[in-house]
Amino acid sequence: MRGRGTDHGETDHGAHDPNTNDPKTNRNLPINNPLRGDIAAAVTAVRASKPLAQSLTNFVTINLVANAQLAVGGAAAMHYSAEEAHALNQGASKATYINMGTLLEEFRDQYPAAARDTVAAGLPWVLDPVGAGAGELRTAILRSFVDCPPAIVRCNASEAIALAGIWGLDVPGAGRAHAGVESSDEVEAAVPAAHAIARFTGGVVSVSGAVDLVTDGSRDFYLPGGSVWLTKITGAGCSLGGVSATYACVAEPLVAALAAALHYNRAADTAERVANGPASFQTAFIDALWNTSADEIAQSTIFI
Amino acid sequence: MRGRGTDHGETDHGAHDPNTNDPKTNRNLPINNPLRGDIAAAVTAVRASKPLAQSLTNFVTINLVANAQLAVGGAAAMHYSAEEAHALNQGASKATYINMGTLLEEFRDQYPAAARDTVAAGLPWVLDPVGAGAGELRTAILRSFVDCPPAIVRCNASEAIALAGIWGLDVPGAGRAHAGVESSDEVEAAVPAAHAIARFTGGVVSVSGAVDLVTDGSRDFYLPGGSVWLTKITGAGCSLGGVSATYACVAEPLVAALAAALHYNRAADTAERVANGPASFQTAFIDALWNTSADEIAQSTIFI
Amino acid sequence: MRGRGTDHGETDHGAHDPNTNDPKTNRNLPINNPLRGDIAAAVTAVRASKPLAQSLTNFVTINLVANAQLAVGGAAAMHYSAEEAHALNQGASKATYINMGTLLEEFRDQYPAAARDTVAAGLPWVLDPVGAGAGELRTAILRSFVDCPPAIVRCNASEAIALAGIWGLDVPGAGRAHAGVESSDEVEAAVPAAHAIARFTGGVVSVSGAVDLVTDGSRDFYLPGGSVWLTKITGAGCSLGGVSATYACVAEPLVAALAAALHYNRAADTAERVANGPASFQTAFIDALWNTSADEIAQSTIFI
Repeated sequence: MRGRGTDHGETDHGAHDPNTNDPKTNRNLPINNPLRGDIAAAVTAVRASKPLAQSLTNFVTINLVANAQLAVGGAAAMHYSAEEAHALNQGASKATYINMGTLLEEFRDQYPAAARDTVAAGLPWVLDPVGAGAGELRTAILRSFVDCPPAIVRCNASEAIALAGIWGLDVPGAGRAHAGVESSDEVEAAVPAAHAIARFTGGVVSVSGAVDLVTDGSRDFYLPGGSVWLTKITGAGCSLGGVSATYACVAEPLVAALAAALHYNRAADTAERVANGPASFQTAFIDALWNTSADEIAQSTIFI
Repeated sequence: MRGRGTDHGETDHGAHDPNTNDPKTNRNLPINNPLRGDIAAAVTAVRASKPLAQSLTNFVTINLVANAQLAVGGAAAMHYSAEEAHALNQGASKATYINMGTLLEEFRDQYPAAARDTVAAGLPWVLDPVGAGAGELRTAILRSFVDCPPAIVRCNASEAIALAGIWGLDVPGAGRAHAGVESSDEVEAAVPAAHAIARFTGGVVSVSGAVDLVTDGSRDFYLPGGSVWLTKITGAGCSLGGVSATYACVAEPLVAALAAALHYNRAADTAERVANGPASFQTAFIDALWNTSADEIAQSTIFI
Repeated sequence: MRGRGTDHGETDHGAHDPNTNDPKTNRNLPINNPLRGDIAAAVTAVRASKPLAQSLTNFVTINLVANAQLAVGGAAAMHYSAEEAHALNQGASKATYINMGTLLEEFRDQYPAAARDTVAAGLPWVLDPVGAGAGELRTAILRSFVDCPPAIVRCNASEAIALAGIWGLDVPGAGRAHAGVESSDEVEAAVPAAHAIARFTGGVVSVSGAVDLVTDGSRDFYLPGGSVWLTKITGAGCSLGGVSATYACVAEPLVAALAAALHYNRAADTAERVANGPASFQTAFIDALWNTSADEIAQSTIFI
């Protein structure tokens, strides 16, 4: 449905300049930090146990979401029904993914009920608030989630800001909503909103951009790398949300969000080397999701 | 939406051990059996006449279903409307494919009416009972098909067992329903259910797994080969259902189901040789559907 | 959902025979004609400004539409809501694409309202009348567009003829409707209908076939080339409609329709050289949309 957040085509997003006054430092998470072991363990656990994360997701990228979940080693089940969500929550599904693209009127009741059912079952769910701020139906559904907050919000900067507004969270200097599906805000602009959301949900926010941010509201992790090609195919962000749900089946939200985003960035690095354009990039990227090792993912640069 | 039935990643599915006590024998259908000529003729007829099989199918894999139908030489028309089904049944369409994934509420009346219209027009239809056993809506639609049974049921083992239960068929030792979209039953476990369904419909059941089963209720055909990669992409099973409908435009159900499954297995064999991961496998697989010869398909090993 | 209009597999569509009595001449648009500069400028402008064309389009090919729009340099936003259409028309979207495939009942009101809103906002919209003539719902929606006509109709020959009939246009020798989604009429047969539509809308009609026709009702442009593989993948026509909308963001309808169709034909020429089948063609085609130069597009053969 959209690129993966900010179109960072003009940005040297591989490097990190320690002399800027942005919120990132240039300190890499120590290589022996236990979090890295948790990330590697999550990657291995998904491949070993093939966990099922069910999805209620948009029609544009539903195929890519499923294929990405399979490519990291998980299983996929897509539907638009709170009744099926309940059956799967009582059955094989260990997490739920809800993506707010291409809403139909009948989703008005089904999506909130699916989210509530997942929380009632004691399972985590992942929200991609695509286009947050646009339209009464989307806003109504997003607002309903206040009572059953997601463990992970995967979004771009604009959507984080809009979502914090919809939920009425107190965000220093916030309020600017965004109606489109293309990100136009830099990740840095969304830090206060991301913090507010994470503190409210008690979970994690994963903001995609030139340098991705994953935060639990107190700790910020900046993830460089990835590829500009991710913004030239539709569904990089959507499918990252789905893969975050796959990882949430086997790991706590912070580890899941980090594992998913790092897995994406390393696979994109690999795919970029062989891509001749957006379609060959996508093929190589999905292949690389399958082939990238747990160690390569866990040893990524993580600025803290 | 799911892999193609049982995840046979751990199984040596290319070989067939004659010393096991499974229901398969190791006798290959004689190379001059007329059925092989019928299969080759069906492959050739599809490529020559480009028959149209209309589809009402899930949103996850709808694109792959259409592209697979085109890649074997057929034509595709997708919709969600009994009215359009009627128009096409009176027009160019020679078979209908109905797949039970990603149901919306309005499909409750449209799918049964489309099936009835197809039968009333004297045309065959193919059912993929995705997720049979999960949810009131799905069960209601599946139950309605009792009065207008499909010529071919294309499913995995779990779904065959669940469908036989929904239709109230007498199956020795049966009754276990399955709510997920991943197959967890071996094909062998579904033989009694498949037989019961085929005898009830007067048609054919095609059960996908490590070794596929095609049965008309009295004769069983086991089809080895294919590729584990088929379980690592979404829609291998769904699109095999669509291609079975394409073949049902030009051949009787048994020949159509065999031609479709064998065409899939031979194309998968070819694609596996060049795949670097699930996405490059899918590309090579669709290309191979186009390129595999009628003779290669018809000369496949078929255990009887 | 279908190939790109007429299945020209048996036709030598690259060559143009000046001795036939078809409506085409063999005169190439002069290389210094200002229209060629306008086409090159449109290609460059899309790549520079990344314009957003919103889409209400079918479920079969929605992913390809979005990826094609991104591959020519534009942005994409997909939905099924007149409310979102309004928000985007007041926001970033500069054109709207409406495609009539896979209609749901709720589209009955949403699609006409989205079209009206786009026209009221002073923005162009592109119609792909997929399956025109089939079904009461489709006909009702198509008829409603009489009051808010599209700037560009992108269709195949059969659909042009059917649409002219639905709109009650006076077409010499017309009246024959077509219910399928496969084109069975040659482009030449649709010339009177295309002229009538273009004169009625005051816009442009782009008819895809072995040799494409773009007409504003007084001037006809015939575009040879492209690839038979475009008819072997689903969505070549649908995505050309979406890309026509992308170009309509930055250029007048005639230039937009020409730039889109020529961009498609040149990319297809390139992809055909490396394709091993329909799927590798599609990958190479999308890559080629990204890589084909503005000059190569603008210098195409254009018969007038």
